Amino acid sequence: MTNSESQSALTAPPEAPLPLRFTDYRVPDPGIRSLFHLDARWESWLQVEAALARAQAKLGIVPAEAAEAITTKATLAALDIPAIHRGIAATSHPLMALITELSKATGEQHGGWVHWGATTQNITQTGDLLQIKKAHLILLDQLQQTFTAAARLARRGASAVMAGRTHSQQAVPITFGFKVAVWIDELLRHHERLRQLESRMFNAMAGGAVGSFASLGSDGPGVQQLLSQDLGLGSMRIPSRGIADQFAEYVAVLALLAATGGRIAGEIYTLMRPEIGEVQEASPAGTVGSSTMPHKQNPQLSQDCTTISAQIRSLLPLAMEAMLHDQEVNGANTAMMDDALSRAIILSGDLLARLTLILTDLEIDEDRMRTNLKITHGLVSSEAVMLSLGHAIGRQHAHDVVYESAQEAIRTHRQFGDVLGANPTVTAHLTKLEIEGLLDPLNHVGLCQEIALEAAARADSMRLISH
Amino acid sequence: MTNSESQSALTAPPEAPLPLRFTDYRVPDPGIRSLFHLDARWESWLQVEAALARAQAKLGIVPAEAAEAITTKATLAALDIPAIHRGIAATSHPLMALITELSKATGEQHGGWVHWGATTQNITQTGDLLQIKKAHLILLDQLQQTFTAAARLARRGASAVMAGRTHSQQAVPITFGFKVAVWIDELLRHHERLRQLESRMFNAMAGGAVGSFASLGSDGPGVQQLLSQDLGLGSMRIPSRGIADQFAEYVAVLALLAATGGRIAGEIYTLMRPEIGEVQEASPAGTVGSSTMPHKQNPQLSQDCTTISAQIRSLLPLAMEAMLHDQEVNGANTAMMDDALSRAIILSGDLLARLTLILTDLEIDEDRMRTNLKITHGLVSSEAVMLSLGHAIGRQHAHDVVYESAQEAIRTHRQFGDVLGANPTVTAHLTKLEIEGLLDPLNHVGLCQEIALEAAARADSMRLISH
Amino acid sequence: MTNSESQSALTAPPEAPLPLRFTDYRVPDPGIRSLFHLDARWESWLQVEAALARAQAKLGIVPAEAAEAITTKATLAALDIPAIHRGIAATSHPLMALITELSKATGEQHGGWVHWGATTQNITQTGDLLQIKKAHLILLDQLQQTFTAAARLARRGASAVMAGRTHSQQAVPITFGFKVAVWIDELLRHHERLRQLESRMFNAMAGGAVGSFASLGSDGPGVQQLLSQDLGLGSMRIPSRGIADQFAEYVAVLALLAATGGRIAGEIYTLMRPEIGEVQEASPAGTVGSSTMPHKQNPQLSQDCTTISAQIRSLLPLAMEAMLHDQEVNGANTAMMDDALSRAIILSGDLLARLTLILTDLEIDEDRMRTNLKITHGLVSSEAVMLSLGHAIGRQHAHDVVYESAQEAIRTHRQFGDVLGANPTVTAHLTKLEIEGLLDPLNHVGLCQEIALEAAARADSMRLISH
Amino acid sequence: MTNSESQSALTAPPEAPLPLRFTDYRVPDPGIRSLFHLDARWESWLQVEAALARAQAKLGIVPAEAAEAITTKATLAALDIPAIHRGIAATSHPLMALITELSKATGEQHGGWVHWGATTQNITQTGDLLQIKKAHLILLDQLQQTFTAAARLARRGASAVMAGRTHSQQAVPITFGFKVAVWIDELLRHHERLRQLESRMFNAMAGGAVGSFASLGSDGPGVQQLLSQDLGLGSMRIPSRGIADQFAEYVAVLALLAATGGRIAGEIYTLMRPEIGEVQEASPAGTVGSSTMPHKQNPQLSQDCTTISAQIRSLLPLAMEAMLHDQEVNGANTAMMDDALSRAIILSGDLLARLTLILTDLEIDEDRMRTNLKITHGLVSSEAVMLSLGHAIGRQHAHDVVYESAQEAIRTHRQFGDVLGANPTVTAHLTKLEIEGLLDPLNHVGLCQEIALEAAARADSMRLISH
Repeated sequence: MTNSESQSALTAPPEAPLPLRFTDYRVPDPGIRSLFHLDARWESWLQVEAALARAQAKLGIVPAEAAEAITTKATLAALDIPAIHRGIAATSHPLMALITELSKATGEQHGGWVHWGATTQNITQTGDLLQIKKAHLILLDQLQQTFTAAARLARRGASAVMAGRTHSQQAVPITFGFKVAVWIDELLRHHERLRQLESRMFNAMAGGAVGSFASLGSDGPGVQQLLSQDLGLGSMRIPSRGIADQFAEYVAVLALLAATGGRIAGEIYTLMRPEIGEVQEASPAGTVGSSTMPHKQNPQLSQDCTTISAQIRSLLPLAMEAMLHDQEVNGANTAMMDDALSRAIILSGDLLARLTLILTDLEIDEDRMRTNLKITHGLVSSEAVMLSLGHAIGRQHAHDVVYESAQEAIRTHRQFGDVLGANPTVTAHLTKLEIEGLLDPLNHVGLCQEIALEAAARADSMRLISH
Repeated sequence: MTNSESQSALTAPPEAPLPLRFTDYRVPDPGIRSLFHLDARWESWLQVEAALARAQAKLGIVPAEAAEAITTKATLAALDIPAIHRGIAATSHPLMALITELSKATGEQHGGWVHWGATTQNITQTGDLLQIKKAHLILLDQLQQTFTAAARLARRGASAVMAGRTHSQQAVPITFGFKVAVWIDELLRHHERLRQLESRMFNAMAGGAVGSFASLGSDGPGVQQLLSQDLGLGSMRIPSRGIADQFAEYVAVLALLAATGGRIAGEIYTLMRPEIGEVQEASPAGTVGSSTMPHKQNPQLSQDCTTISAQIRSLLPLAMEAMLHDQEVNGANTAMMDDALSRAIILSGDLLARLTLILTDLEIDEDRMRTNLKITHGLVSSEAVMLSLGHAIGRQHAHDVVYESAQEAIRTHRQFGDVLGANPTVTAHLTKLEIEGLLDPLNHVGLCQEIALEAAARADSMRLISH
Repeated sequence: MTNSESQSALTAPPEAPLPLRFTDYRVPDPGIRSLFHLDARWESWLQVEAALARAQAKLGIVPAEAAEAITTKATLAALDIPAIHRGIAATSHPLMALITELSKATGEQHGGWVHWGATTQNITQTGDLLQIKKAHLILLDQLQQTFTAAARLARRGASAVMAGRTHSQQAVPITFGFKVAVWIDELLRHHERLRQLESRMFNAMAGGAVGSFASLGSDGPGVQQLLSQDLGLGSMRIPSRGIADQFAEYVAVLALLAATGGRIAGEIYTLMRPEIGEVQEASPAGTVGSSTMPHKQNPQLSQDCTTISAQIRSLLPLAMEAMLHDQEVNGANTAMMDDALSRAIILSGDLLARLTLILTDLEIDEDRMRTNLKITHGLVSSEAVMLSLGHAIGRQHAHDVVYESAQEAIRTHRQFGDVLGANPTVTAHLTKLEIEGLLDPLNHVGLCQEIALEAAARADSMRLISH
Repeated sequence: MTNSESQSALTAPPEAPLPLRFTDYRVPDPGIRSLFHLDARWESWLQVEAALARAQAKLGIVPAEAAEAITTKATLAALDIPAIHRGIAATSHPLMALITELSKATGEQHGGWVHWGATTQNITQTGDLLQIKKAHLILLDQLQQTFTAAARLARRGASAVMAGRTHSQQAVPITFGFKVAVWIDELLRHHERLRQLESRMFNAMAGGAVGSFASLGSDGPGVQQLLSQDLGLGSMRIPSRGIADQFAEYVAVLALLAATGGRIAGEIYTLMRPEIGEVQEASPAGTVGSSTMPHKQNPQLSQDCTTISAQIRSLLPLAMEAMLHDQEVNGANTAMMDDALSRAIILSGDLLARLTLILTDLEIDEDRMRTNLKITHGLVSSEAVMLSLGHAIGRQHAHDVVYESAQEAIRTHRQFGDVLGANPTVTAHLTKLEIEGLLDPLNHVGLCQEIALEAAARADSMRLISH
């Protein structure tokens, strides 16, 4: 392989040519993807080498001048990039060439102190973690934007009465804001999870070859501690290279978030069916749904979310399998985790970007919601009738009476109110007017509005949190 | 289907006839499995119906006498079991028949107040949650026993020097206690996760048909609150039936725990290979490894753990998919989650029971560990030589020199010390005695012992925690 | 553990207490579940021991009288069951106790020839395979019934015009029979796959401890051949115990089938929404959908299928992971595969039973289908207009013109036909009558009817196949 | 977003920046990856548009001159690429802009016939399938190379006696060639599966918007037939856009192949442990295993295979979930499948490239194999003793006698032969010389050599097959 080929292999990494989403043109990029570009990761690795030298200098392990010299050169701009590529090709090793070039750039006097007492994974894992932490902050920011959009939507729809639906069937009335409140509730718990795992997740690892501080001995923990502080990270309790539960947990929480994202998207996809038509995802003028059906306006962003949700969830078993390290470490598992973790993070950014767009611009059709509530000819309010009747004749008996009336209304295609009005057990306790009142969906939405507003307030309060 | 058939269908549920583990005879049952028997779940559901009535009586929604009467009869012993079976067969409904029989047993006067304003899932989910909470406490107890066993093992092996192994190859020396410390470290984080999720997980749901408190209106939240307190649970913020992230999270944390369990088992499986032979899973006299190879003693419990680990992990995608409820709820998803959650909990109990047994009785062969350290003819200590040499000639140069010597030792099948002793660059800086000292694995175990003892202390401190 | 406890452990295996489906009372059991009961498996294992003895007798390896004696006693009725349970408890071994008791029952003279040259897995795997083959034939039978039901349904709906829907939006008209044809098409390929894998799947394994015929030498292949013929199975090319790709493939094909089942169920679940209402799953009188909403009629069987589909698919990663045997075999992997395979087969039977019921009794509402076609005010036929116009002005230009008209119709809530009729580019080429004709969905169903009938004929032809 | 940004978004697709394998420099690229580059896919789509026009011209649907004109321009070289990018940004549609530019390039007279009667997915799916078919042929070629390498390895190791290992313990002796034969056996079945699915997989889809041939009517099937022949593909029986079982099956078979690949890699990873040391993956001079442990030589390619195997298997649930299309198609599912399928194919190429390298250059250490056989002090041959003794005293009794002796040898750390020689039941039937012969592993390898050579012959015969 010639040198120029190896370079191009690195600037266009092998995983590149995969399916595009054509909405990528209209959805803003959250800025996570680029954090995982190879050059960005290399810069981050070099920062860790520099921080290592500084930490060791503070403890008198390496000369202060060496740490300074290394710090000055620990950036790609100071290194011989083609030589790095040649080195990787020669060694099949991810870091050795970078160390060699950094040593060379640092100069003969101090270059020997580069990477002192460290193992490759100390540098790469800690460096990648710096990138992941940046991504994490972006994800938290994106979540805040999602909360803001969701809060507004919950308020907009707080009193928009629509059918609640269980098992695909109309159940009792709700308001659209109640539905959004449920989404907010789930999302808030994901935010809580993301914050709780930080103390387990963002810890530097600098314990050497197997995590025993063999190379630095009793100085080891101090070096790791100083390095961590320097980089704004915590410090691993035991810096074993085979510990990966924190990463699998991160993927798991992103998968939970993705499941909620997929669920929201699924709800919108369904409510956008023309036969329901209660909400509409906004789509910019000019968007084409079909090359052969000119009228088509598809729920593109919601579909994106469904796809991304499935993609993120599919990474979870990989992350879990990656935890099963052999003995002190198996690089095969590290590579699995790298893949699962970086993909899950990138995809989560794409998901939240779309989710926020959807929630921000979603159109609500209250007329259609009201129309749809009439579709069951009153059956959507059967519970209200049963409860009212139950006060007089007992819940169990009332269920039987209303069940029979409901079956009859379905069988005979009559209005539920008419069937009830013709039933002497019912009319013995309820007047026609009372029946009418009970069948009015507006009278049976419970605390939907209150719940919507309370959730909106909770979502809004997240805006004030700084991460 | 005759009545007696339907009964037997229920007492021997359809999922029954699946593979046995033949170690079930010698591993104590942690008592989780029986919590999920149908009759145990029914008892729990009945308790929720009673607590619902009591909560409603306190708020004056149902008569106090009714609540008392319902409480008295809310136990399978007071009900007509065959009638329940007939009822289920007639309705294809999981709870209706139980309600009917409870109403009947409660009597005409008060029976009508049974299940007032509630939907089925309020009762079944909250009742099942009571069972899961019991299981949760058992799992936490089991974890404490695992910690105790692990702490003892970490102390036993704190100074047992053995090869650290990365990518299957000997890396630098460790002690066996260090390895156990890493296991403890992971397990402690799982314990932390299990405690952190409790506030999200153990909340009663009593918001009616879609979670909007439509049936009870402004009394609804109070009823749910009182019911929750009565049952020793928290109260769902929004009692939507389609919210399931807390359950998926629970399965995820059990999967993380299972991954660690599988990893520990895998390490032992490997260390028990006769060519390594550093540890031995205890097996009771009489245990047969093979019907055709009389000498076989297999790592049966570790293999069990490997299997169970994979089984638990395989439930995670199911739990994640189950979160994708349609609109206000889809029973198909509820059923997926029930399956994933109950299986994962039962299997976790089986896993921890085995893990504790393994750790308690594991035999450590320190002689064999020492012998194995000699197998690389000194190469296991190459890092120590490089670091020492690096002080004189720089890390990078030292790596190259030691790399060449190591390759030569491998190529020529000579002792690493001899090759180093013949290298003028090395001997210019290190005496023969110094080389020998550097090649002694005992001198390069870093802080393994300290880490082992510190982890043991952390594990032991868990004994004092009450859940 | 006392002996009686161990017995009960076996008659009620530990995996028992898991979620019930309450439709199990009304859906016929296909008879697969009982094939995996422990006693059924034991009987099958005993048959293999007998067949082994007969095969060896034919080749003069064991005395003919011994084979006869073993054959006579190779049934649970002839053995001391409590002693088997005691033996399992003592040995933690799945088969040894069965062999011991079979030897004992066979008597001193011939008992020594029981299990000659075999390893446990030879017997258990081959015996379980006999059970799986029985299950396989039941599944094929169930598929035939599904084909018959689907064929009838395709014919019933062959000319029932309804909206075709892509990305949740109405696309172009189809007929319901076309939809069923697609289901049939997928199911036929699954049938083809199930037949193609038979030659890889149903092969006996009798190569001894590692599959090398070490115990029987050059007689080994002959013994395996005769044993296989005796049991109606093929013979493994290399009888390695670590080969499991055939089982993982079986689970994979069942997962494909399950995906189709879940897809059909999902389509029906959606079409049953009251806002669409085009089909209705039949439910027996008395079925209760909700304890609090007496009117609810839920798509219970479709929901079952959705759940089961997800459950079967979740077993696939377990089966794939199970293939990763260590060296000549790892019992942990064998146990994973047993679990994945037996569950997948049992669940597939439950799935097909429900699928056939659904397809057999599905109610089609042609009126509602026609009504729904009007919901887009003609847009569902935009392709027809574009193509007609395209003949005159080119496809690309026609797409632009019709796209603009469609957007206008949506924006202004007007009938598509009216907007088209007011567009001079359109009216230059199409008369009002022609536009009306193009907008009639009945004129744009393509070959839906032909495709439905052709698929029905293909499905029906499966009835004649004997397996 | 400016236009130049959108261009760069397309030339560096968003999925790009993911983990590199550093062995990519030394493992030859099989040429699959580039088939999925966006420009390669666009070229393929354009070919389908051209073939569509030619098919329609043959049937007199479009003018022959139009088909010729379209064919001439149906290549990226003839189109305005920046305009395509602008078009995608404006429409969020994957194909519309390509059609527009192709129409434009074709010219006013004939451009209107581009994409006549087709829907986007007809073009993209059929075009992608052309790329997948090329990839398929490469995979089959790679498999042939794997077979050739495996056949040679099986012959090289046909009589290299080593320990067979079950459940991590030494079982009975085998030869290394036997082990390779098992790998060949699995791989051959995967090849068989890949060939069997071709008739289901490689079929063009050209049935229009929902697959009903609505746009072309009775001409539709003929057009699809001619188009298919033109492109060297079969023709879908029912060209529904929601049919995806063939793609999920493809991923499933690749996952089976990946599982075998992972299993082989795992076996080598273990046998390369220095405590076993029976094989060695070749690594080029200069390869660095560790930045801190200069001696390290890691099983890099095997680890790659383990990682890739897990990655491919993780795509299977995604592919299965992708099958669950809503109604006539859901683009979200199509996107899932695109991702799962393209990744699985690319990764399979990387896997086979590594597998072939490993098998080709694997070093076998027969001395070490023989040494390891002595590690159990004769126990590895316990079966041979039991069978010999069993002829005299019955298998069951012999198992008990040998079991006791084996336990004693383990307990007392004595040679198995010595313990047997001191047991009167044994010596009553076997002389010291006979015992010695039975304990010689060379006498108990069964048909390992024959099986190895037979499998090698089968593997070699694959070389002659042309795909």
